[in-house]
Amino acid sequence: MRIAEMELTPREPDRDAGRAARRRQNDLTKPPGSLGRLEDVSVRLCEITGTCPPRPGKKVVIVCAADHGVTEEGVSPYPSDVTVQMLLNFAGGGAAINVLARLAGAEVVLLNVGTRTPVEHQAVLDRRVRDGTANMACGPAMSRGEAEACVAAGLETARAAISAGAGMLAAGEMGIGNTTAASALTAAFTGLPPSSVVGRGTGLDDAGVERKVGVVTRALEANPPDPDDPLGVLAGVGGLEIGAMAGVMLACAVEGVPVVIDGFISTSAALLAERLCPGAVGVMFASHLSAEPGHRLALEALGLEPFMDLGMRLGEGTGSALAMMLLEASARLLAEMATFEEAGVSRDNDE
Amino acid sequence: MRIAEMELTPREPDRDAGRAARRRQNDLTKPPGSLGRLEDVSVRLCEITGTCPPRPGKKVVIVCAADHGVTEEGVSPYPSDVTVQMLLNFAGGGAAINVLARLAGAEVVLLNVGTRTPVEHQAVLDRRVRDGTANMACGPAMSRGEAEACVAAGLETARAAISAGAGMLAAGEMGIGNTTAASALTAAFTGLPPSSVVGRGTGLDDAGVERKVGVVTRALEANPPDPDDPLGVLAGVGGLEIGAMAGVMLACAVEGVPVVIDGFISTSAALLAERLCPGAVGVMFASHLSAEPGHRLALEALGLEPFMDLGMRLGEGTGSALAMMLLEASARLLAEMATFEEAGVSRDNDE
Repeated sequence: MRIAEMELTPREPDRDAGRAARRRQNDLTKPPGSLGRLEDVSVRLCEITGTCPPRPGKKVVIVCAADHGVTEEGVSPYPSDVTVQMLLNFAGGGAAINVLARLAGAEVVLLNVGTRTPVEHQAVLDRRVRDGTANMACGPAMSRGEAEACVAAGLETARAAISAGAGMLAAGEMGIGNTTAASALTAAFTGLPPSSVVGRGTGLDDAGVERKVGVVTRALEANPPDPDDPLGVLAGVGGLEIGAMAGVMLACAVEGVPVVIDGFISTSAALLAERLCPGAVGVMFASHLSAEPGHRLALEALGLEPFMDLGMRLGEGTGSALAMMLLEASARLLAEMATFEEAGVSRDNDE
Repeated sequence: MRIAEMELTPREPDRDAGRAARRRQNDLTKPPGSLGRLEDVSVRLCEITGTCPPRPGKKVVIVCAADHGVTEEGVSPYPSDVTVQMLLNFAGGGAAINVLARLAGAEVVLLNVGTRTPVEHQAVLDRRVRDGTANMACGPAMSRGEAEACVAAGLETARAAISAGAGMLAAGEMGIGNTTAASALTAAFTGLPPSSVVGRGTGLDDAGVERKVGVVTRALEANPPDPDDPLGVLAGVGGLEIGAMAGVMLACAVEGVPVVIDGFISTSAALLAERLCPGAVGVMFASHLSAEPGHRLALEALGLEPFMDLGMRLGEGTGSALAMMLLEASARLLAEMATFEEAGVSRDNDE
């Protein structure tokens, strides 16, 4: 399926449901506004899902994995083999995302859109578009058709999850080298210089960061980005798993399902999704502020405010899984708290 | 029991358990340090409990309730009756703390240390020290003996919970007028002027805040605080539930049990606990940053950094309940993640 042929219209927020949520918040047994952002989140959840209180569906984290040809340039301290090794670790339930998803009550779906070598495991969906990207420092990371294919893989996987009852999604990732692609995408979509968005990734030293800035600069020179052609930007300097994550977010925008953004790479996918489908940001919630310097800038470009600043920089969807618990808290407060009338509690003296 | 006669020596942190936790964090399948503060929290949990990984015990939120004579001065938009009404709402499971405790898997214990009128309900522990405090703007809020009694009530309730298997505690509160007492305590223990610690509480306007600053100033003049006599400060300008919350924290310090601090009132109790038992802060975790301006100052005085800034200002222990999920996440990551060796994942190239 070609992205251009898909109906990518974001579902309109249901303002009536939002107003009903705001009214109910003011009737609950607490001073008005005292739950802070948890109140605002509940209103947004009602607007997105069109019900008040929001019906909590299943939580699903779709972890998208792929390799990056740009690792040839020495942008990560880890070898590319780690992408597949970690994918198998996810399949075995031993990674951080597995632990946090279990705690949050979320299912983990593993989507392989392009590891260098195939992964045969019943827990891993095989939608490999190609054997990792090409080295974007020397030319396009992938073809335009491949860019469409990885977005479609994420979109279709998310739609299947939603059809099966998912009511809250997140897109996580694994791909050695992918902070480099995320940096290039963020620079391309925000117009910021590479030096302001590039960070240490999984653990570069100062010289490594300098080298990485040079690599991103060369990649943007080799593939001059046209922000009005988001698929072209993805093909030039993106990653297969980043395209797939954007696809997950697009499915949520179209279906009216809240989606929790994770760290820097996830947010670069969110920028891509918003460019592909303006308004898609309406279903997005930012979870945490990553230690990567480009993350705050990318969130600001989207107008999203994270819930937590815990110095995390792991990816996988780990921050999203934590934030899913906050979204659930927000939804449950709206649904389960007693009103002043129900509980026989006096309102403030002004009323 | 008199506080002076209690053995209030904080349990020494187990540095060996902390080092074992740090070593294990570096063996888990993730770049070292990439879980940010969740790694540091896991190390502290091991130091506090003396085991690595930490054994998660039951979670318990002890909600301490009492009334405040200072409400005569018009410092809250809510009538004092709301304290008892909300205590019954807690007993019925309809308040925000009930919803969030259910989500976090925490038990809620209700401890009445001094509502103006008695509350007879099987879910409410009756340890009323007096019928609310006296108006601290005109004289001491309570006697020295009453100050000891409310601290002891919290301490004994927490010890009973710990004996029954609690491995993580929080102290929440309900008491119309208690941001005024918390402001006075914070000013007394930090030396800051009332104007910098007083906020809107449950919803004062600008004129109300100005009046509240005046009330706190008069209270500190009527009861000149000696920071070296923390019980005297509590008796002068404190609250019965604030003393009880400090007692909960003292029990945790003595027994080596992590305790999660909530908002402004809870943090004023933490200041009191640390003055009563220097080193008690070693078992404390700050949950969120309240919208009350004095909260950040009180946390800074304790050297605690909150996990979240959600604009919450409800109290009850609501922020603590959210943070309990983060503490559990931290403990579970350390316990449940696979090591590089177990998962067959390559370490970075430098090793």
